[in-house]
Formats: sequence, structure tokens, C-alpha cells
Amino acid sequence: MRRPTIMDIAKAAGVSKGAVSYALNGRPGVSEETRKRILGIARDLGWAPSSTARALSPGGRVGAIGLIIDRPAHSLGVEPFFMQLVSGIEMELAITGSDLLLHVTEDHQAEIGAYRRWFAERRVDGVIMVDLRVDDPRIALAEALPLPAVVLGGPHGAGPLPCLYTDDAASIREVVHYLAALGHQRIVRVAGPDGFVHTRDRTRAFEAASAEVGLADAVTVHADYTGEAGARATRRLLARTERPTALVYDNDVMAVAGLGVAREMGVDVPGQLSIVAWDDSTLCRLVHPPLTAVARDVAACGREAARMLAEAIGGRAVRSRETARGELQPRGSTGPLAG
Amino acid sequence: MRRPTIMDIAKAAGVSKGAVSYALNGRPGVSEETRKRILGIARDLGWAPSSTARALSPGGRVGAIGLIIDRPAHSLGVEPFFMQLVSGIEMELAITGSDLLLHVTEDHQAEIGAYRRWFAERRVDGVIMVDLRVDDPRIALAEALPLPAVVLGGPHGAGPLPCLYTDDAASIREVVHYLAALGHQRIVRVAGPDGFVHTRDRTRAFEAASAEVGLADAVTVHADYTGEAGARATRRLLARTERPTALVYDNDVMAVAGLGVAREMGVDVPGQLSIVAWDDSTLCRLVHPPLTAVARDVAACGREAARMLAEAIGGRAVRSRETARGELQPRGSTGPLAG
Repeated sequence: MRRPTIMDIAKAAGVSKGAVSYALNGRPGVSEETRKRILGIARDLGWAPSSTARALSPGGRVGAIGLIIDRPAHSLGVEPFFMQLVSGIEMELAITGSDLLLHVTEDHQAEIGAYRRWFAERRVDGVIMVDLRVDDPRIALAEALPLPAVVLGGPHGAGPLPCLYTDDAASIREVVHYLAALGHQRIVRVAGPDGFVHTRDRTRAFEAASAEVGLADAVTVHADYTGEAGARATRRLLARTERPTALVYDNDVMAVAGLGVAREMGVDVPGQLSIVAWDDSTLCRLVHPPLTAVARDVAACGREAARMLAEAIGGRAVRSRETARGELQPRGSTGPLAG
Repeated sequence: MRRPTIMDIAKAAGVSKGAVSYALNGRPGVSEETRKRILGIARDLGWAPSSTARALSPGGRVGAIGLIIDRPAHSLGVEPFFMQLVSGIEMELAITGSDLLLHVTEDHQAEIGAYRRWFAERRVDGVIMVDLRVDDPRIALAEALPLPAVVLGGPHGAGPLPCLYTDDAASIREVVHYLAALGHQRIVRVAGPDGFVHTRDRTRAFEAASAEVGLADAVTVHADYTGEAGARATRRLLARTERPTALVYDNDVMAVAGLGVAREMGVDVPGQLSIVAWDDSTLCRLVHPPLTAVARDVAACGREAARMLAEAIGGRAVRSRETARGELQPRGSTGPLAG
């Protein structure tokens, strides 16, 4: 079994190579009946146009999009977010038969280099960008190359690129009001790195919401989304004389690690400490007590971003869109203080 | 900024297009000094050969390999194994500047179809296959196309394809002997789907090891690696009149879910129940008590598989290799029965 050629199809159909070409390219020159027969034979033989030939044709597409994740490799294994995102992207690509090129880089410069190479080598038709940073150099790069791109995040900080963004401020507000209603006065947020746009947005919203409910100070500490960093931050916070009574984490992995530290230090959840995770995942439901979380449909975001990118690649002007905001999903890890 | 061409390099270097072509292709016709200067300018301009042009050259490679994961999308988010594997593969690809095409399919037929399409469209130079099944049709397919492939698993069931395999039997034996030494008489294994070759291998080894230490019967129940299924299986097992005193799980996600169920049912770990996870991950260390686990370097496996595939793509005969076997990593979730 070798890769079938147009000649093979012509032989099997008993027609000329030219007729096969007309049929496959949808051009006049063969009857509808012959076209159907030729297409049927081509399908039976497993024929498909070479992606290389297709890409060399004028205005040709490669039929692939790229996603670069710039996070430490060891943190990725346990972070459900990206696999959910990839699943969603793939759902959309399955419809068009496009492929996903996935790249994991360990620093921002390597990420920039990879976009340049993908562009120079015509590897992808466009890219989905995640983890938008403050003053992100990727925005200017996508414009300069030019490489069609959709940003998952923003909208501010994304320049002219179309964004798929979420109103995190509303979700943060819901969490803070809920915890305050349960009677919590010392709420601390264990956030992701300060360099991310969405981290800063959430910090601002957390401070505003805390002021609304009359909390003295809204403390945010930063970690890097890994369980180890989440555990360290939690240990430090629970060792304070005036320890917090509620912790809000920026991802699920750190929240699960925080629950483990609470148990290790003999702090009862939720009797002495309430825990809220951001981005719900199976992880939050697996532990005991299950974690209260802000739930978003991450796979749906991936799917929508892929759809927007397809529009951008097709040359259409794509408007930024807002996704459904994260909903608070109360479970066993939050409650009023006991006693 | 547009994609730089050979003409741009020629202009910048003040030489002919032909000279640039000689220099870039390493052919005689330009002095070593000129060659170096041209290559330097090409690099400065960000020039790279188009992957499409490269692939059309005789014996040309696409410079990409493929990985298809055929698991339900929702189970992937939380399973650290595949992201660790992808990280390892990418480490190796970074050296050669190759790309990874990742595909998530929800059934085996879709997986087969994707390999056919990748081959027909010249998308990849080769593939890494995971989750080897009993009578796996992918083995014959890779031979028939032909598509260079390396199997992560085996060695039996992989036909003539080179395998990167692990001696799971030795690890299972270590686990069973350790639990028996702690005094456990009722050990049950919560395994992955029975259709996987590695599941059957572990089941056979579990039965043999149980017989060695004189356990009456070695019970294996099957689940699908998701936390939900792991929790259901655990709930059923802990509801038995003669409930098991030790549970060995085929992945980390099910083990973490099992720990949650034990807590939910008031069964003390490790006082009344010991838990062992297979494939250590941050997940196992995040929970409390941290889980005893069989630890493998999954990223290293990914890297080695990518290296073997590069050899196979290069036309070399690749021999199957054995990886370091999983090591038992005792933590707080195992111990003798209390009281």
C-alpha cells in the first residue's frame, strides 16, 4: 500500500489524468456522473491532496494551527486547564480536518522564536495565544509577520488582535460577596504570576469587591500555579498569628495543594478555613471535602477560539467576543466558621 | 515584515541568487568565506526553508511527528500522564526543530482514519503510538501505509514495530510483596480497561505475585482511568462485608478519587486501608496523606520514544528498548492495619 496518486485514480476509473484533475478540483470538463464516480473511487483508494502541494498553490493554506504553552513542563502535567483547552480546539478542527501543532516552551523568548519559525517555514495558518502578559511582545509580532492570531484573554493588552475574553471581575465579586456573607473577614487570594494580564485584572477586581463588603485589606500573594508553590504559600499564610479564614486560589491545582496543607497543619476545612478554587475540574470533585470552585467551560472556550481563528485565517475581520463568565459552584470546602 | 526570500539574502549579501542557493544547500560553487557570510545574513534576516518546499524535495521530510490520544476528552484534562509525555517528546523535538501534531480522538476508528489522512496528506514523518490494544489494528496499518512508528508499550502485541516498554511485572511484584509484608491479606487492584495490553500484563503479574505471597485470590476490577469511575469502583469495594484492606490503582487520578471515597465513608487511610497509585505525579503528593506510588519518569519515556522515532524516520533499523522500571515510592497512604 503506497500513497495513491491521481494516476491510480485515473487507471481505476478508466479516464484520463486530466479528467481526474477536473473532477477533484470541481472544475467543468467532466459530466456530473463521471465526477461522482471519480470522487467515489478517489475516496475508496484513500486519496487526499498532499498538504504540501496544497500549501504551494496561490493563497494556499497549510491546514494547521498552532498553540504554544509557555509554562514549566512539570507544572503542565497536573494542570487540567490546557488539556481541556486542547480538547475543545480539536473538536472544532475535526470538522475542517485541520491539525493542531502543539509546542511547550520553557521561556518567553523560545515562544517568540517558535512563532517566527512557524511563519518562515509555513507551518501554520494561524495561532491561538494564551497567557497574555503585560506589554506582551507577541501582539506586535503577530502584526509584523503577519500571522493570523486569536488571543484567549484580554481584551485590553491584546492590541488589534481579536480576543475571546471572560469577565473575571464579576466572578471575583461573586466569590468575595459569598465569603463575606458567610462571615469571613480575612480573605486572602493565592494568585498566579503578576505578569499575566488576567492575574492583574483579578487582583484589581478582588480589591474593589473587598472594599465593597467593607474588608480592611485585600491581600493577594503570588505563586506560579504549581501545587508546590500553592502549598508553600498556604503554609506561610496558615502560620500567621492572625491567619486567614478563607483562601481563594487562582487555579485548581494550588487549591487542592492548599487543602492538603490545611489537613497537614490540623486546620479544619470548612470549620476553620474556607477554600475556593478557580477553574473547576474533576480534581476539585475528587478530594474530600470537594472544593467550591468558579466553573468555566474551558473546552468550549477552546472550541470558540478555534472558530474565531478559522474566520481570521479566511481573511474576515473578527470581532472580540466575551465567553460565559465563571459560575460559583459551592461545595463542601466553604462555610461559616465553626464555634 | 514579510517572509524573507533567497532574493532578499542575495541583495543583502551582494551576490547572485545562485550563490545563495549554493551556500544554503551546502553545495560547491562559493568559497567557504562567502558561504559563512551568506549563512550569517540569512540567519539575521530570519530566513528558513519553507517546510512545503522541503517536503517536496526527493526524500524530503515534513519535519513533524504525530501523536494521537484516543481517550475521552473529559478524562484527559485531569490525567497528568499525557502532558508529561508530550513535554518529554517536545524536549527531543526542540533539538531538531521538528513539530508535534497532537490529535485527541474519541474512538479507535477515528484514530485509524487520522493516521491514514496524515499519511495521504504527508502531514507527519512518523508517529508515536500509545495505549496498545489487544489485536491492535494500528500495527498492520503502520506497516501497510507504510508509516514509521514507535510503540510506547509492548513488546508483545506490537508486531514488527519498535517498542519502548517497561517491565510492569517487576513493579507489580514489588507492590504486592510490600503490602503482604505489611500484613495485608485482601488486596484488590482497580485497573484500567481490559482491552489494553499493559492492563492485561499487569493483571497476569498481579495474579502471579499474589500467589507467591499466598493470597487466596487476586481480584482485579476494571475502570476507565477517570476519577468518577475510580470513585465508583472504590465505593463498591468498601461497601463489601469483607472489604479489602489495600487497593492498588492503575493510575494516579483513580487513586486520588479512592482516597476521597475512603474519607467520605469514614475509612481511615492508612489505619484501615492502604492505597497505592501507579504513575506518581504531583497529584499524589498534593493530597493528604500523600499517596504511595509506583514512580516512572514519563517525560523521559516521551523523550526516548521521540529519539527512537527519529532513527526510524532516518531509515535505520530500530531495536525495541526497555525503560527503567517503575520504583515503589512509599508515602503516608500505606502501612500496617491499626489496632
